[in-house]
Formats: sequence, C-alpha cells, structure tokens
Amino acid sequence: MFESAAQAHKLDKATFTLEEPRLRAELTEAQLELVESRAFPVIILLTGADGAGKGDVLHRLLAWLDPRHLRVNAYGEPGEEERLRPRFWRYWRDLPPKGEIGVVVGSWYNAPLIDHLRGRLDHAAFERELMAICRFEAMLAAEGALILKMLLYLSVAEQQRRLKAIADKPGASRHVLEEWSAVKRRQRSRPLVETMISRTGTAFAPWIVVPSQDPQYRDLSVGRTISAAIRRRLAAPAPPATTPSAPLVPSLDRKTVLDGLDLTRRLEAEEYKRKLERWQERLAVLTDDPRFHQIAVVAVFEGNDAAGKGGSIRRVAQAIDPRRLRVHPIAAPSDEEKAQPYLWRFWRRLPRKGHIAIFDRSWYGRVLVERVEGFADEVAWLRAYGEINELEEELVLSGIVVLKFWLAISRDEQARRFDERKGVEFKRHKITAEDWRNREKWDHYAEAVGDMVDRTSTPYAPWTMVEAEDKHWARVKVLKTFCRRIEAALG
Amino acid sequence: MFESAAQAHKLDKATFTLEEPRLRAELTEAQLELVESRAFPVIILLTGADGAGKGDVLHRLLAWLDPRHLRVNAYGEPGEEERLRPRFWRYWRDLPPKGEIGVVVGSWYNAPLIDHLRGRLDHAAFERELMAICRFEAMLAAEGALILKMLLYLSVAEQQRRLKAIADKPGASRHVLEEWSAVKRRQRSRPLVETMISRTGTAFAPWIVVPSQDPQYRDLSVGRTISAAIRRRLAAPAPPATTPSAPLVPSLDRKTVLDGLDLTRRLEAEEYKRKLERWQERLAVLTDDPRFHQIAVVAVFEGNDAAGKGGSIRRVAQAIDPRRLRVHPIAAPSDEEKAQPYLWRFWRRLPRKGHIAIFDRSWYGRVLVERVEGFADEVAWLRAYGEINELEEELVLSGIVVLKFWLAISRDEQARRFDERKGVEFKRHKITAEDWRNREKWDHYAEAVGDMVDRTSTPYAPWTMVEAEDKHWARVKVLKTFCRRIEAALG
Repeated sequence: MFESAAQAHKLDKATFTLEEPRLRAELTEAQLELVESRAFPVIILLTGADGAGKGDVLHRLLAWLDPRHLRVNAYGEPGEEERLRPRFWRYWRDLPPKGEIGVVVGSWYNAPLIDHLRGRLDHAAFERELMAICRFEAMLAAEGALILKMLLYLSVAEQQRRLKAIADKPGASRHVLEEWSAVKRRQRSRPLVETMISRTGTAFAPWIVVPSQDPQYRDLSVGRTISAAIRRRLAAPAPPATTPSAPLVPSLDRKTVLDGLDLTRRLEAEEYKRKLERWQERLAVLTDDPRFHQIAVVAVFEGNDAAGKGGSIRRVAQAIDPRRLRVHPIAAPSDEEKAQPYLWRFWRRLPRKGHIAIFDRSWYGRVLVERVEGFADEVAWLRAYGEINELEEELVLSGIVVLKFWLAISRDEQARRFDERKGVEFKRHKITAEDWRNREKWDHYAEAVGDMVDRTSTPYAPWTMVEAEDKHWARVKVLKTFCRRIEAALG
Repeated sequence: MFESAAQAHKLDKATFTLEEPRLRAELTEAQLELVESRAFPVIILLTGADGAGKGDVLHRLLAWLDPRHLRVNAYGEPGEEERLRPRFWRYWRDLPPKGEIGVVVGSWYNAPLIDHLRGRLDHAAFERELMAICRFEAMLAAEGALILKMLLYLSVAEQQRRLKAIADKPGASRHVLEEWSAVKRRQRSRPLVETMISRTGTAFAPWIVVPSQDPQYRDLSVGRTISAAIRRRLAAPAPPATTPSAPLVPSLDRKTVLDGLDLTRRLEAEEYKRKLERWQERLAVLTDDPRFHQIAVVAVFEGNDAAGKGGSIRRVAQAIDPRRLRVHPIAAPSDEEKAQPYLWRFWRRLPRKGHIAIFDRSWYGRVLVERVEGFADEVAWLRAYGEINELEEELVLSGIVVLKFWLAISRDEQARRFDERKGVEFKRHKITAEDWRNREKWDHYAEAVGDMVDRTSTPYAPWTMVEAEDKHWARVKVLKTFCRRIEAALG
C-alpha cells in the first residue's frame, strides 16, 4: 500500500526555489476565488506518523494560504463539554463553512486507531467505526465539501531517527510524542493503518499518501494536491445530483402506517386530568433522578398542521426543570447554517448530558415538507433517510434517548380546527393561506410520512404514532412514552 | 428597602382563578407579537433567597409563555470551557436574540455576592464588580434589551420555615441550598443585598421586589410586570437616540496622534531579514512557553486601506503554532449576529487560555468606518468608546494580553500602492471603486483615528501606532510588540 511512497523521493533545492513561488501564487488565486464564490468548504486531514512533519506542513500551508480564511483544528483527549456530547459533536462544531478551509490534525481517525491499538476496541468494533467515518465523509461530500486526506508517509527507520531527535529536544512536541508513540511497535500498527486506508479511501474522500522523507518534496506535493483539487472543483462544480437508481414507488393500495391508526381513541376530561397529573409527576421524578445526569433526551415532534404539537410540548415542558430543557422551534436556517451541511444546525443544538432538547419540527423536514414541496431534489431527500439514521444511532450510542412523535389527525378534523381558529381573535391561532395550500397536498404528505416511518423507525429510535384526533389522548400518550423510554434508559 | 414587600400581601384563590387566564392570554399575545416583530430581546433575572420560590415562578412562566421562544439559563460554578474564558463570556454566549425571552437564574449578581460573603472579595472590589455589572446592563439596554430584574422577597422567619421544609425533603433541591444557605447569617447578607439593589437599580434595568410569602400573589405580580413591560415597549419602542450632550469637536489645529508619526522609518532588506527571523523565533518560543497556557492573546489590526495589515498578520501567524491560532477577518455581521448586541460577535470569537486570536478589523469598526460613513448614529459610536474600554478591561482582567495596532501610511503612499496594484493581475490585489471613495474621506478618517486613540488607549490596552510606509519596518515593529507584551505578561 505504501510501495510507491517508500521510494526515495527527493527534490533539489533549485527546483523547489523555482516552483515554490508559482505554487504559492496558484494557491493564493485559488483560495481567493474560493472565498469570494463561497462555493464549497475544503476539509484537509493531516495525518501520519510522528516525526513525518505534520507541524511543518501546517506552517507551510499557513505561509501559502491566507490565514484569515483557514482554520486549524487539533483534537486530543476530549474536554468536559465534549465528553458530555456525542463523539462527533466536536467535529461538527468545527466544520468550516462554505468558502473556508479547515485543516484537521488528530482527526476522527485517531480515536478508533488508538483505541484499537490499546485494546479498548476489538477488530469488529474498529471496522464498525471506520464505516461510521465513511458515512460521515460521504455526507460531507454529498453536501459539497472537498475532502482531502493526507497521510504523511515515513519509513520505519527514518521515523525512528526523527523521533529520537525530537525526544532529545526539550519541550513542546512531547504531547505529540505520547499519542502515536505509545504506539511503539510500528509492526503492529501498520496493518491497522492499511485497513483504515483501504476501507475509507473513497472517490469522494480519497487518501493521498505523501512521501515525507524529503521536506521539500513533501511540502510541494501537499501544496500541489490542494491547489489542483480546489482549482478543478472551482472550474467544474460537482455534477448535479443524478436521478436515483430506484425511485420510491407507492404501494399498490397506497396504504401506509397512518391507515392503521385508530383515531377514535379519546380520554374524558376527568380521566385526562388524573392521568396527565400522574404522568407529569412521574416524568418530573425521572428527570430529577441522579442517574439522569448520565443520559440526555432528544425529542422530535412532527405532525399534521393543527395536530396539537405545541400543546403536547407544553405539557411535557411543565413537568421538567426548565433549567435543563430547551425547546427548539425549527424555522428557516440562518445564513450561518446555510453555509454548512444540512444536519449542522441540529448538531449545534444537541443537549449535553442531563439535559433535554425538544425539537418542534426537526431534521425530518427534508423528507417531509422539502420533499413534498420540491425544495430538496430527489437524491438529497433519499440520501437523508440514511443520514438521519446515522445521526440518531450516534445519539443513542452516546447515551441519548431519542423520541420521535408523529401527531396524526384526520383531514376532517384538521378542517374543523382551521375553521374553529378563524373565529378566535388570538393572532397565534391564525391560519394562513399556506396552511390551506398544504392541505391540498394531504395525500402527498401521507405518502411521505409513510416512507419516513418505514425508513427511519429503527429499534434504537422508533417512531411513536400518536392518535391526536383527541388532544387529551395525544398528550397523555406523549407523556407516557417519555416516561417509559426514560425508565428503560435508566435501567 | 424592603419595607413594602415585608407587608403581608395575599391574594385569595377566587381572585387568582379569575385573573390568571386573563394574564395568560395577555402574555401569550405579547410574546407572539414580540416573536413576530423580533423587535428586542427580553432578559428576566430571577433572584432571591432560597425558598422564595424561584423554581415555582420558573414553572409558572413556562406554563404561561410559549416555551419555544423562552430560554432558561442557570449559572453555578463555571465549567471547564468557562473557566478558560473571561468571566462574562458565559453570559454573552447565552444572551437571547431579538424576539426571544431569556430567564436568568443564578445571574451575574451571584458570584460577587457570594465571593464577598465568603471573604474572597473585599468591599471595594465588591463595589467595583457592581459597577461592571451596571455598565454591562447599560450596554444591553442601549442595544435595545428589555431588562427586568426580579427579587423574590421573603421575611427571615418565613425563609427559615421554608428552608427547613426543603432540607427535610430528600434529593433534588439540595444543591440550591448549598449556595445561598452557606450564607447562614441573613443579618450579614442583608446590607450587601441592599447595597447591590441600590447601586444597580437603574432606569434601564430596574429591580422589582416581589413579595413572595403568598405564591399566588407572587406569581401574578411577576406575570403582570412582565406582561406590562413587554406590551409597553411594543407599543412605544425605545425613543430614538438623543443627540449627545457634548459632541466631539476637533482640536483647533486639527493635529492628532497621526501627525506625530515619523513615516520615514525604514529597514533595509538585509537588516529586515535578520530581525524578522529573530523576532519570529522569539515569538515562537514565547507562545510555546508552558506559562503561556495561563494567558491568551487578542490582537487587533486596524489601519489605512493598503497599509499592509494582511502582510503583518501573516508574519505573526508564521511564528505561532497554527493549532492555537485563529485569524478572524471581520466583515458584515451574519443574521444571527445582527439579532444581538454589537459586541456579541467579538465575544463569541474570544480565545480560550493558551490561544491567540487575531482580528483583521475589529470592534473599532463602530468608531471608524461606521462613524465616518454614518452607519452608526452619533450616540451609538460615542457610547462605543466606553463599551470598548469595558470589554478590553474585562479581557485583561481575565489574563488576556490585548494588542492593538494602527498601521499608518501617508496619503501619497496609499495612492502609489493603489496604482501599483492596478498593474497586478492577481485578483486579490484588486482595488475597488469603494477604496477610492474611502480615500476622499481621508481627513474624516484621520479625525476618527485621533479620537479613537485618545479615548481607547488605556494603560492596560494601549494602542501601538505602526509607521507602515515601509513594510519591513511595520512588520518588525508588530512582531517586536507582540514579543514584548507577551514577555511582560509571562512576568
């Protein structure tokens, strides 16, 4: 795998002196065009054995590129805020927006590699982590990111020589040493690195092995690769999403999960009051449990217009310590959010441990309104099912309870509620022309809901279908589900 | 000070049952209008002795208001990320944007109060902290925030009764108890609280003492105050900024600090190369010093167009570990930033300890371009001098070295550089019509720079005037200043 890189690659000084200014000018031009067009983000991973010169390459990039539009993120052991969140949270937080270049040192590959070498992760788990990384990078690429993964290659002999030189110097580089050189036996790590490279070297996020014995050869290689990649992408933007190989075709009888709901379910006022109180109390006790500080809750509310999401959310909120609750109404993305991958705005709102985040509408917007209204193209929303499952699995793995509610009412009931609201003065109850327009697409929405539930109701994050024709019934069912799922998580 | 509140205030159940739905409807309407207009943020501080019912009031507010546009922030001991930043950073981070309501529990008043009671802060320091809080609130108010500071009042006897009841119950509320009831002797804390109230009760951020013996009386009082305040502000928006009492008048001879600069200073190529290398090396060593992890650097670059800010920044960046450096080019604010006070977008970019943040243009925009071009009204930019000094003092107090560079060139040299760039192909060097327009306002800018330096060059954060007619001289002076100031900070 490193056969070519292991050759003696050298660059004489004269050539470097001649080539370097040209490359720098090229990079400057390319970066300026990138910044001005805000066409896509560039993510450069810098990995490699200690002593191969990651620090030197970084400095070189900072000299060649405009540091005002370049961010370097280094990841060591996670800090307090990071430990309280899902693993990928810190990588999401630091993603460069469109037009910017992010250089990642100590990337998402480090943790699984080191954990495996130290025996904290068996081989199957290691492979699973690599697949998760692949899907993460596939998502980034599909969102338009240009991903370049540089592996600085050094022969074993050369590395040992350099590490010794670094170790003999006092000071700064010592922390670097600890990381990879706890990995003493290169013989043991090499097959792992090869597995990593072969599993995660994809067309959309290729590995670039850079011979690093000669610093000038190394730096010019890195610089040229970056320059060529950016310029090519600027010249020929990513091809438009192709049509999917297999479009979703509705079932013959067009029946979906919605047709199985019994919308006649209801609770009388007396029973409602009693049950509401009981479940709210139980939820209060559960979320105050000391063990709750080890978990967190993400609850998603989706449903037909006027199905009563707001009312249900209030009944839940009343039972929870407001200092640990945030309700996020999801509206149009801000301009900072538009410059990032679709899921970024949800990642930034994830709760830390011991906290609860309620999403009033959510990442499912892509496969509901954006699909039906045509705001997202077919490939984008088809891809979303997998990305969403990926997201939710990551949340669950980090100890978050993921609750998803679909509040369903009948078409007649919706009309009744719309009409009812017309009579009310309160502005918050106003029904807009848009609401009526959405109603006309009732069948399209029903189809989208069916597809969504079929594709994203997973064992770890199942959908709860809530019969919401009767508000009492709906609210109690939501509260009950909260309690049951949290109870299960507390064990 | 609490004489009226100490009276027996009661509300009978019948009245409450009658009034509560009305108040709720009022609040709902007011909040909806607030959300839709995005006119201003509302900040509600909830303070008071333990047992006075902060938690209950919170729950009531959550029942009355739409939780989707309400955020509750509680502050205890600072976490890791917070300890690595200036004290006020966490309050800035959590400020509600326009249209939203933020309820603050355990506010910025808690730390000085507790520190004073525990003897960690003497009385003079306590008073100084209160003044800092006043200026913070004045800034928020001037930016349009509606600030309501609620103090839930309880007599000593009643408090003791309630604390006992809470202490006898197991579990959740215990951490609350620790805080204020470490403050055992109410006799000792009362004069402090009175000082706090009298020093910080202002027209723009008044204290509202709420008698809290009777929960229904308390809750209705809080709710009505909030409702009335929001509705009044919605009906009559803050009056337009008045003209300042004393406008800035240029000196008779119109001489400013800029006229004292010797722009003939220069370095020959040989000497430049030697000095550049020497100072870069020194900066590298200084920022790698273990003691550097206890401090941080914020460096501001301002200057005439084409004065060479970018080149100087690059020379500094080259010397620093890129993993601990972020360069922030300051352009137009994003929409999330526009919904916050002016300084918010700089607070969110502050470096943590051990890190360096370079601002290419900065908060001084308000007293430079925004003043000259008329983007900010006179009162706003006059107010900025004080707010900026406040900001920088806070940074310095938290251990941050604040560097501020003005890169000065002559009008002729600027013309020469503009012309020179016209000949260059590189797009990054392009000169726009706007640059030429700015040139016509040369004298206005000079006046603004003079006023800025006079008013914001403080002992703790002095301006460094950089003669930039010769780029070599400028770069070396910048690097030297970096080194000297960091050296001084490391002691």
